[in-house]
Amino acid sequence: MEFENRNDLPTPALVLDVEALDANLAAMSEVLPGDRLRPHVKAHKCTRIAALQAVRGHRGFTCATAREVIGMAKASLGDDLLLANEIVDPRRLDALASLDARVTVAVDSVETIEAAATAGIAEVLIDIDVGLPRCGCAVAEAGALADRARQRGLSVRGVMGYEGHVVGLEDRVKRSEGCATAMQILARAHADVGGDVISAGGTGTFDCNSLATEIQAGSYAVMDTAYAKQGLPFRQAIAIEATVISVSKRHAVCDAGLKTLGMDHGDPRIPGATVWYCSDEHTCFAADPMPKVGNRVRLLPAHCDPTMAYHERVFCLEGERVVDVLEIDLRGW
Amino acid sequence: MEFENRNDLPTPALVLDVEALDANLAAMSEVLPGDRLRPHVKAHKCTRIAALQAVRGHRGFTCATAREVIGMAKASLGDDLLLANEIVDPRRLDALASLDARVTVAVDSVETIEAAATAGIAEVLIDIDVGLPRCGCAVAEAGALADRARQRGLSVRGVMGYEGHVVGLEDRVKRSEGCATAMQILARAHADVGGDVISAGGTGTFDCNSLATEIQAGSYAVMDTAYAKQGLPFRQAIAIEATVISVSKRHAVCDAGLKTLGMDHGDPRIPGATVWYCSDEHTCFAADPMPKVGNRVRLLPAHCDPTMAYHERVFCLEGERVVDVLEIDLRGW
Repeated sequence: MEFENRNDLPTPALVLDVEALDANLAAMSEVLPGDRLRPHVKAHKCTRIAALQAVRGHRGFTCATAREVIGMAKASLGDDLLLANEIVDPRRLDALASLDARVTVAVDSVETIEAAATAGIAEVLIDIDVGLPRCGCAVAEAGALADRARQRGLSVRGVMGYEGHVVGLEDRVKRSEGCATAMQILARAHADVGGDVISAGGTGTFDCNSLATEIQAGSYAVMDTAYAKQGLPFRQAIAIEATVISVSKRHAVCDAGLKTLGMDHGDPRIPGATVWYCSDEHTCFAADPMPKVGNRVRLLPAHCDPTMAYHERVFCLEGERVVDVLEIDLRGW
Repeated sequence: MEFENRNDLPTPALVLDVEALDANLAAMSEVLPGDRLRPHVKAHKCTRIAALQAVRGHRGFTCATAREVIGMAKASLGDDLLLANEIVDPRRLDALASLDARVTVAVDSVETIEAAATAGIAEVLIDIDVGLPRCGCAVAEAGALADRARQRGLSVRGVMGYEGHVVGLEDRVKRSEGCATAMQILARAHADVGGDVISAGGTGTFDCNSLATEIQAGSYAVMDTAYAKQGLPFRQAIAIEATVISVSKRHAVCDAGLKTLGMDHGDPRIPGATVWYCSDEHTCFAADPMPKVGNRVRLLPAHCDPTMAYHERVFCLEGERVVDVLEIDLRGW
């Protein structure tokens, strides 16, 4: 290894606690074994982590981009790849159709069905709006779209409906109730569409979504401080390793900032310290006692997905020891 | 060119209006010619854009990371590179000291002076806290640190003090007054430190900072919606090109989200539309009339620096025509 110890790493560096990752994968597999889980790779964007999920028996994966699907197929993880997103780009659809992999694409309109059929995509799911104002057709349109897809020669495997408006609710009862309401909508759509697959869910609803045949959880593998508030059985596995570069009487500054962190869920957390704010290459914080210049600190990201997407690689730690380096090879588009 | 027209680009794509970029560079050079401007490369992280700034007579550059300094030196843009940031990593300092380039490093403590001297860095600036709670020593410490640096064999070129707490103020009068107050602090430090260089400023204070011998502006080249509120003579040059992938009665969804955008300054703007929210790979918005699936939209980022850092490359547009592709080659660390 180029770097043997955590303290050897040039900073800022994305680090991964492999013990925590392993515990997270184990905890999830116990509740959702095999095909009950379709891990979402958008959370980690790393085929090496996906391979660990596959080893645990999850052979189907969820992707958010064409690049993720292509990268997973090329990494021999193409048993059953779902692009859980709408796409109309003919070049990318052609590329997906020509992969040596099973590829299913979400569709929610005549346009997306036509684009998939024209490219020779074999299988689709009808994507349903279950309350999150994003993609997905209205329930009333689902049956007609499924008919149209079948007329165009597409195999309709079933429905998809992401309850993204409730997965982040901190209160478990509200989350469960919101999930149940969303899944009632999805069940009505499924009745009109048919097929074996009801794909839904996320880390926040992994154990309360009782309708879905498969759960699309991703964040559980690496976690973030937003999901940590829910008291889930998953541990924080990623962090940003940083070096203190300046200390005043009131505050300290480390060398990890906005370009290392997804900021849409707010500031990162530094255990034992109070984060003041982040700028491009700095995070300012107060602590008691104050650290010294050259000390290391770890920042816990508020949102894992856009954090992973900033980094070329993640350093795997066992305790303080660097045991591996993984390329974040599914980033970009 | 692989892509001839804007509409050929796979989305999401970072695009750059070269006419707007050129106008921005010209407008800045008129007010701050030659060495009066030390462009900050952290805003664009692209040596090809830096080369355009050099052609306009700005031969000194500001960098925020060691990688930026090294990348600029290797691109033959190393006439006078300032790492306007504290650094204690001995490997990186060694790498900086061995570059075939003039490299000056900011120091604000005994530790950063020792690290620079040990590595054989030749020149430093004393970094002063002028009111932004980030790096920089107190004015009272500046003279002693300069003495210490000189005793350690370092050439002290002068002082640096970034008024980052005022550059973003929308009201020009408040911005000017805040800048003047900050620069009074920097002037006191300079009196104790000596040297030819007083380096400060940013895009928001480029024409009201009357103390600094050189202004470290970066955002002016590509701009963002945060700086656009100040009514500066710079145009929005970058955008995220996106494709509409789903449309409902109430809203539309395009394929550019959190992983394409620095979000710390808030949501992007879509001209003629109301942005609802961004998620990992989507932005949801309402418009009247509503777009159709397959239509293109452009998102204007709220903060240029962390936006550029997400992208491998930027497509240069002249009107609708793709005329060049630039690698964002200074990203990472």
